[in-house]
Amino acid sequence: MKNFRQQQHRPKKNTLVIGRKAVTEAMQTGKQLERIYLQSTVHGEAIDEIKKLAEKTQTPINKVPVEKLNNFNVSNHEGCVALIAKVQYQDLQDVISFVVEKGETPLFLILDGITDIRNIGGIARSAYCFGVNAIIIPDKGVGALNEDALLTSAGALEEIAVCRVNSLMKTVDDLHLNGIKVYASEMKAEKKTYETNFAEPCAIVMGGEEKGIYPALLKICDGQFQIPMTGDFDSLNVSVATGIILYEVMKQRSVS
Amino acid sequence: MKNFRQQQHRPKKNTLVIGRKAVTEAMQTGKQLERIYLQSTVHGEAIDEIKKLAEKTQTPINKVPVEKLNNFNVSNHEGCVALIAKVQYQDLQDVISFVVEKGETPLFLILDGITDIRNIGGIARSAYCFGVNAIIIPDKGVGALNEDALLTSAGALEEIAVCRVNSLMKTVDDLHLNGIKVYASEMKAEKKTYETNFAEPCAIVMGGEEKGIYPALLKICDGQFQIPMTGDFDSLNVSVATGIILYEVMKQRSVS
Repeated sequence: MKNFRQQQHRPKKNTLVIGRKAVTEAMQTGKQLERIYLQSTVHGEAIDEIKKLAEKTQTPINKVPVEKLNNFNVSNHEGCVALIAKVQYQDLQDVISFVVEKGETPLFLILDGITDIRNIGGIARSAYCFGVNAIIIPDKGVGALNEDALLTSAGALEEIAVCRVNSLMKTVDDLHLNGIKVYASEMKAEKKTYETNFAEPCAIVMGGEEKGIYPALLKICDGQFQIPMTGDFDSLNVSVATGIILYEVMKQRSVS
Repeated sequence: MKNFRQQQHRPKKNTLVIGRKAVTEAMQTGKQLERIYLQSTVHGEAIDEIKKLAEKTQTPINKVPVEKLNNFNVSNHEGCVALIAKVQYQDLQDVISFVVEKGETPLFLILDGITDIRNIGGIARSAYCFGVNAIIIPDKGVGALNEDALLTSAGALEEIAVCRVNSLMKTVDDLHLNGIKVYASEMKAEKKTYETNFAEPCAIVMGGEEKGIYPALLKICDGQFQIPMTGDFDSLNVSVATGIILYEVMKQRSVS
């Protein structure tokens, strides 16, 4: 008897791209893939081509044992199955240009090390409510933005732009080149939320609840701030913290 | 074969009070019970006594079929099993007196129709961070504050005072008698968060995501306010909304 939860979480066939040729063609024709599962033992020209296209389109590849692929319950997977993306992945520079052309003040959210997809969903919901232009996530270390993430986001993840990037360090450089400041939410920062100027074009970096923001990334940010608290409790949930920061941004921008 | 999830969620024996006499004695000696499960078909003097004590101690009673009780896997339950409370339930008037005596400005959170215990856990975490004096919940319609709720609260539910009340309408009266204003978070309110004076002693009512605040309760509040948003999306998650409001309260109080 099959495990109920496994059955529940197995993607439906119409959300899959099956086989080497189909996956290659999907990427060539611009179809967005959430991730590619490659059997760890497969090699050859076709696989090299898939890897090359995946890098170009910033699609994550997971190397997996053949059992994982068999478990999709599809025939002829040839060691290669991809999930079709449920989210609108967009190019960061395109989003920046679009926002600037509309005459809006850019506002981005960078998620560093937030792996819980429920938290990402919750953050997307608040981000959409407060007019964030795009959520930026790294292409590694984040779970697939699946049904659960969409559900927690109350649909917001299907509406808001998501930029999947290869390196957050490079992304901060790109933002700087576009005149966008990058501020990090950091519990031990001296400045408080309301002492930071969010009215100018900016991006906000949120770190994971366990590890916080990667030190090298923190270093190249333009500033750090903390949410002041009255209790002596360690920290807010990252989704709640993000909501509070976006509220502060909105308030500052509606006044200025 | 037993269902794995059922097994997982069944309370451990040392968190239970088993049998009519034990449950009666627990309440008589002031032990706090999360709720009492009574077999729907049992009657008699002992049961009447349990009902009387439960009302006096504001302990919810769930009438259940015998199968539910058998499923606790205990012998001699006599149609009566109670869960020991994991949360510090406290008397609202006691908390008010304590806060006033300390010279603090009272701040309470009233949860009306928030049934998802994960949301209650998340709210408790923010409430503790921002120095809320107590969370007020009705004794009906809210799930047991169990392990899941404690986990989501990151332990805050074990630290913060929780007042379980029979009637939220009467609670608002009690707060008024103590000079505490009651403001309702309501999406369609005209006033915005920052146009409401949270610096004075106050309680904030948060409604469930589906139904909002009970109309009669809304009517006796001293005012309503909304969180201003930039997007045209319907609403924030209730736990995020609560965090934002508490941040606004904290800011107003730190300035005044």
